[in-house]
Amino acid sequence: MSRLEHILPSGTRDHLPQTADALYQLRGGVLSQMRRWGYRRILTPTFEFSDVIRRGVGDASVSLLQFVDPPTGQVLALRPDITPQVARVVATRLRDVEGPLRLCYYGHVFRLESHGGFARREILQAGAELFGATGPDADAEVIALGLACLDAQGLGSYKIDIGDVELGRLVLRQLQLSDAQQAVVQRHLAAKSRSGLEVYLRSIGTPAADQRLLVDLCELYGDRSTLEPARRLLQSDEARARLDYLEQVLDALDATGAGATILLDFGEVRGWDYYTGLLFSVLLPGTGDPLLTGGRYDNLVEGYGPRRAATGFALDLERLQEALDRQGAATTDERPTLLVCDAGAGRREQLQIAAGLRRAGYIAIAPLIGEGQSEDRWRIDVLGTDRVRFVQNGGESAELTVAGLEQRLLEEECRTS
Amino acid sequence: MSRLEHILPSGTRDHLPQTADALYQLRGGVLSQMRRWGYRRILTPTFEFSDVIRRGVGDASVSLLQFVDPPTGQVLALRPDITPQVARVVATRLRDVEGPLRLCYYGHVFRLESHGGFARREILQAGAELFGATGPDADAEVIALGLACLDAQGLGSYKIDIGDVELGRLVLRQLQLSDAQQAVVQRHLAAKSRSGLEVYLRSIGTPAADQRLLVDLCELYGDRSTLEPARRLLQSDEARARLDYLEQVLDALDATGAGATILLDFGEVRGWDYYTGLLFSVLLPGTGDPLLTGGRYDNLVEGYGPRRAATGFALDLERLQEALDRQGAATTDERPTLLVCDAGAGRREQLQIAAGLRRAGYIAIAPLIGEGQSEDRWRIDVLGTDRVRFVQNGGESAELTVAGLEQRLLEEECRTS
Repeated sequence: MSRLEHILPSGTRDHLPQTADALYQLRGGVLSQMRRWGYRRILTPTFEFSDVIRRGVGDASVSLLQFVDPPTGQVLALRPDITPQVARVVATRLRDVEGPLRLCYYGHVFRLESHGGFARREILQAGAELFGATGPDADAEVIALGLACLDAQGLGSYKIDIGDVELGRLVLRQLQLSDAQQAVVQRHLAAKSRSGLEVYLRSIGTPAADQRLLVDLCELYGDRSTLEPARRLLQSDEARARLDYLEQVLDALDATGAGATILLDFGEVRGWDYYTGLLFSVLLPGTGDPLLTGGRYDNLVEGYGPRRAATGFALDLERLQEALDRQGAATTDERPTLLVCDAGAGRREQLQIAAGLRRAGYIAIAPLIGEGQSEDRWRIDVLGTDRVRFVQNGGESAELTVAGLEQRLLEEECRTS
Repeated sequence: MSRLEHILPSGTRDHLPQTADALYQLRGGVLSQMRRWGYRRILTPTFEFSDVIRRGVGDASVSLLQFVDPPTGQVLALRPDITPQVARVVATRLRDVEGPLRLCYYGHVFRLESHGGFARREILQAGAELFGATGPDADAEVIALGLACLDAQGLGSYKIDIGDVELGRLVLRQLQLSDAQQAVVQRHLAAKSRSGLEVYLRSIGTPAADQRLLVDLCELYGDRSTLEPARRLLQSDEARARLDYLEQVLDALDATGAGATILLDFGEVRGWDYYTGLLFSVLLPGTGDPLLTGGRYDNLVEGYGPRRAATGFALDLERLQEALDRQGAATTDERPTLLVCDAGAGRREQLQIAAGLRRAGYIAIAPLIGEGQSEDRWRIDVLGTDRVRFVQNGGESAELTVAGLEQRLLEEECRTS
């Protein structure tokens, strides 16, 4: 491993077959779920012009992995997210397509720097985006799809936090703070520092009632029963409308039967510059970084063309795979690898038996002789697969057919031999 | 389109849903074929240290898309090929794994510059590599797998050219040329310039018989009957052994029943610096660039660790998709998109019906209201899918169930409505 750490740039890694197979199957499962919800795939380039990507990255402080394109001198960037690219396509080539647009994607995204022990600079994501649809049903659809992707993979004991940046904005507006003051307040909120917030609000002369309102709101966190104290706290018509909206989203999620524990987080301020309404993140117990994040960003598309509502999420496939692995729920290919051994009937028949088994959906190898190995020692390595089975061509009966082999394989329990 | 050409770096592009879906399914089909042959997936980083990649790139003239990593100042490169990365992993983390190793991969590879009208700088590849196995059975397995990947997708009327760089090297050795002379001869061979070759060989005083030998060999091109004139031309033991080897590969290919027209090209010199034995490429009638290229490169792994035999191929998925599309054989998702319309039974039931249909494997949408559209106009765009079907929840009978709907869908022919 230490040899390897020096041979690869920090924050990048290879996935050996066991993980690579699992990630591949996981991605297939997630994308097939998205497809069933009517989301169609879209494929975008790994790098783009840096300034074009930046138009769709909410947070101006996001550090792009930029480089100068040698043949042109133009500044390119490896995409930090696929969402801005999808928004760009929606605003340009799909601008004349009416009605809600359901799109999904998968691919790698990149970070400028790695932080901590092994912080990835290359991240494998899958995501879904719903354009041109407003209202609680649209938000609920995207959240429900995200949860369905996790549920279909068998992920257990996770929770989803749902917040609403609009509610926070309403309260800040009520406090009549300057932009600079708002920024400080947001920092305290992000750090979830109640005392810092109180000290600061006192220092700028915020009335005690308003101070309490903000602090209380940010500490409201829990299941849907939290809507009641929130309604007592926020009595403006606008705030009431937002809470009703949130309740309708919860009702719709209820109807789709998502398996997650849903928690409302009224103090969530992550991505206030980017999101324009509901935002959500899926977390596993005992881990800080979310597995899936998303929300509504109705200002995103207008960076590239006419304004269009948008809500979506991105899912970290490597993190999901690790979580499933820890929970013992990782997807594996259950098929054993069949080694078709030549028991005297010749290579030609051996190859034909293997081909027939493959056509029938089996994994079949007609073994080769390894370098420096004698013919009687089939040292076939299957890289962590413990489900290997030897089958013989013509060993016991010269007229052994693919159909006969298949029948025998179906009858016998397939186990390591 | 012209707007788009300016918004994306040259040589990159977006794939809209119809193509993206087709590419996704194509990749799935190809990788599932590789899996059935016992090839396990491996996932490697998009960029690496430039000098590490270069150790596994045969052609020193290959221009990498390099850049300086801002946080470290190190020179990185976007991978021009995945094969060197797989070789690196085999030489390091998998070095102690005995026996033939079967690995496959997919992902994007990158070019420094685009040439011509729309030459891609980002190419979607899938490939397979067989390590630690020498001999005709190993070469045949890799070629047969390549052809099986194409056949399984329904590709028609293609041909595969098989050459052998070792044979060419034997002849050049016989001619006793200097390295500089060999280089000139190789250039003429690559240009398939018979007259250039003759003039040059005469100018350096090559005996007439040797001149004729080389020119005749390079013009040998055709089906397996070409082996006979080759045997008459090349009578050394070494050359005979190579021709026997080639014949054994053809026999093994014959046994696996590949659908391609197989042509032997004794004048093939592409990649002489890289390949160490058989090499092959799949071409479509009327196109110059190959769809799939591969061969044996036994010197590849030693760039990263202990020497290990290697043979493999890479397949250009976008080019394959275009070819299938032209031939009318492109893979499509045959399932219609079901729009579950609310005919009065309420959103909750609508959502539940859609969820049930998805669990049963259907593509189902519970339609949303588009921006600025009235509720009675469901302008659902499905981006090129003409297979849309409306189903109603509770429209005709309040007790309509998912099972009932499914039954009706199975009974009726699904067509555009």
